[in-house]
Amino acid sequence: MKISSKANACNLSPMRKFHPYAVDAVKRGVKVYHLNIGQPDIATPKEYFDAVRNFSLPVLAYAPSNGIPELTNAVIDYYKGIGVNYTPNDVFITTGGSEALQMVMHSILDEGSEVIIPEPFYPNYNTFIRSSGGIIRPLTTTPESGYKYAFKDKIEKLINANTRAIMFTNPGNPTGAVLTREEMRLLADIAKEHDLYLIGDEVYREFVYGGESLASIGQLEDIAENAIIIDSVSKRFSACGARIGTVITKNKELQKQITKFCQARLSVATLDQVASAALYNAKGDYFDAVRKEYKLRRDTCYNKLMEIPGVICAKPEGAFYLMAALPVDDADKFQMWLLTDFNDHGDTVMFAPGEGFYATAGKGKNEIRIAYVLKQADLERAMDLLKLGIEAYNKRAK
Amino acid sequence: MKISSKANACNLSPMRKFHPYAVDAVKRGVKVYHLNIGQPDIATPKEYFDAVRNFSLPVLAYAPSNGIPELTNAVIDYYKGIGVNYTPNDVFITTGGSEALQMVMHSILDEGSEVIIPEPFYPNYNTFIRSSGGIIRPLTTTPESGYKYAFKDKIEKLINANTRAIMFTNPGNPTGAVLTREEMRLLADIAKEHDLYLIGDEVYREFVYGGESLASIGQLEDIAENAIIIDSVSKRFSACGARIGTVITKNKELQKQITKFCQARLSVATLDQVASAALYNAKGDYFDAVRKEYKLRRDTCYNKLMEIPGVICAKPEGAFYLMAALPVDDADKFQMWLLTDFNDHGDTVMFAPGEGFYATAGKGKNEIRIAYVLKQADLERAMDLLKLGIEAYNKRAK
Repeated sequence: MKISSKANACNLSPMRKFHPYAVDAVKRGVKVYHLNIGQPDIATPKEYFDAVRNFSLPVLAYAPSNGIPELTNAVIDYYKGIGVNYTPNDVFITTGGSEALQMVMHSILDEGSEVIIPEPFYPNYNTFIRSSGGIIRPLTTTPESGYKYAFKDKIEKLINANTRAIMFTNPGNPTGAVLTREEMRLLADIAKEHDLYLIGDEVYREFVYGGESLASIGQLEDIAENAIIIDSVSKRFSACGARIGTVITKNKELQKQITKFCQARLSVATLDQVASAALYNAKGDYFDAVRKEYKLRRDTCYNKLMEIPGVICAKPEGAFYLMAALPVDDADKFQMWLLTDFNDHGDTVMFAPGEGFYATAGKGKNEIRIAYVLKQADLERAMDLLKLGIEAYNKRAK
Repeated sequence: MKISSKANACNLSPMRKFHPYAVDAVKRGVKVYHLNIGQPDIATPKEYFDAVRNFSLPVLAYAPSNGIPELTNAVIDYYKGIGVNYTPNDVFITTGGSEALQMVMHSILDEGSEVIIPEPFYPNYNTFIRSSGGIIRPLTTTPESGYKYAFKDKIEKLINANTRAIMFTNPGNPTGAVLTREEMRLLADIAKEHDLYLIGDEVYREFVYGGESLASIGQLEDIAENAIIIDSVSKRFSACGARIGTVITKNKELQKQITKFCQARLSVATLDQVASAALYNAKGDYFDAVRKEYKLRRDTCYNKLMEIPGVICAKPEGAFYLMAALPVDDADKFQMWLLTDFNDHGDTVMFAPGEGFYATAGKGKNEIRIAYVLKQADLERAMDLLKLGIEAYNKRAK
């Protein structure tokens, strides 16, 4: 039996490939500090669980294909709060940001279509795009320049007849880079000029640490036809397991296509929608508290990194990730060695090696992504382990 | 901006296209009896809601990509009960049978690949296959022969170099046709001989009314490499809103591809998985009671249909659907007329017109699908309305 050549071109998750070695380390009694996955440790607001417990219909029925009105309206109200007006026709509730991305790619890509994405990027983009017949045209950035990517000339060089969209994560995963208003405007102008979709994966919107107001490409009214927003409750409300996301677009033709995919998969889980609508009622200081906590962690992480000679890292301004170049030959080999050969008083550390975040072969070899989703004391210990690990790794008998 | 040509080749749901007219009828004070959608009215077992209420972790985190062990094991135990042995590697928990279908198509289809499916078929198959670059090669059946499709010569005529799979829903949606053991064997032999995947969408497995034991292509051990089972808790436990499904395959190469798609979309909703695992503990007489209820409805539906002169319908043996040819010129026009021009004492009825279930143009024009998901008294009234409607429609001034 044959396998799809498109499936063959997809990869297993680079974040999960060291999992079996971590399991082995734990079996040997080693404690592993996890900086490798973006699963926040912040408590999910109790509004979620209260709503779930109060659900009292006898039949757990299909929800409307595009989402339950309570949740759609909660999303619309949220955007009103950042100055963007949407109607229910513009908002599609999806099974996580993941399904939102898959539906968008199914709707806009043909065999051979291209999407321009700054690299390093969230590796699952590759699967959503490949399975829709498209490919990623990477816009390469570097640790030395803080992974900045909004450069007109560099982007325009990548545009050709097959280009359908420019996509970015803002604030960035894996880099933590945050677009300035001017950079966002520049991307919008390029999309408009070249008649491309501009896809903003904005699931980390709340996680900005410079005191700026919340940004969205939805605020740029003149590109309403081009703009596609990917959003989710996963990170915003520490509710990753709800699998509730959103695609938002004012483009009527695109709405028609997305509706087809929404109808084909019938609906999104009913209880999770009811409970996610309640999340949007979480009290106003929830975000402030969460932002304060992550900012502290970002600072810890960054300051500890700066103490390690040879590390290259620009201070990330958002999300809860940080990308850095380490003074090691190969981050993959280093990670493996940390799990199999290293421990300090019985402890070791895991991060995500950088290569899996790049489309260009050979890039990111000495880079790593750190997800700072641990409590302060654990984070400090994890960063100390990274420092000790680098020292020991570079001194080891080869 | 361009739209995907594959998306353009997908359709909106034929089940939902009359929805606005039904809304209008209700606004005019007409009561609409719904035989058009497969949303069961049976109560979801309380085990589901109990499990949800008892969930007590503070963070609603991502679940493992392939599913939580409790649910995977519940699925394995269920299959053990029908004589099929699976390991955790064989079972992938998905967001409904819908995601299961999409992942399978992404894994096996290339541009131009073909899947042989008996028509009439579940219309959403078209979207999952088209968006993966494939097309449906329909195996046409007829109301006169009870929509039977397991014929070696007819199937082999449709096989060519692009054929990747034979897929069927058993028990059938929309027809209610159930494969005999011999017919299932015949399909397995064809798949084996021609090196094709055999995809059994078996979500209606429990809904058989001839006293037979539960069937699955998983029971045919010699085609373990070819067999792909699509399953779901939606119909089995009247839990459509849980969006919990499964792909099951022993084919290692396919498992590798499906794992990629599971990882890319991160996980299935955590609470729904926990609660669906509990569903499999629903007490043993649950299925007997549900089966008895649906059998009664099937009989009501069929007997009432047989009282209408000119109807062609073979008694369906399973699922909760029935397909029939009516003595009308056009089921679409008839449905529209029922909603806009007809009522009997303020009541009218909705079904799903047949054309949307066929890939071959012009087929199914005078056929309808009935979902018998109403309580006995409502079902009787709905079927009487259908009879009265046909009489009045054929006597109307044109």
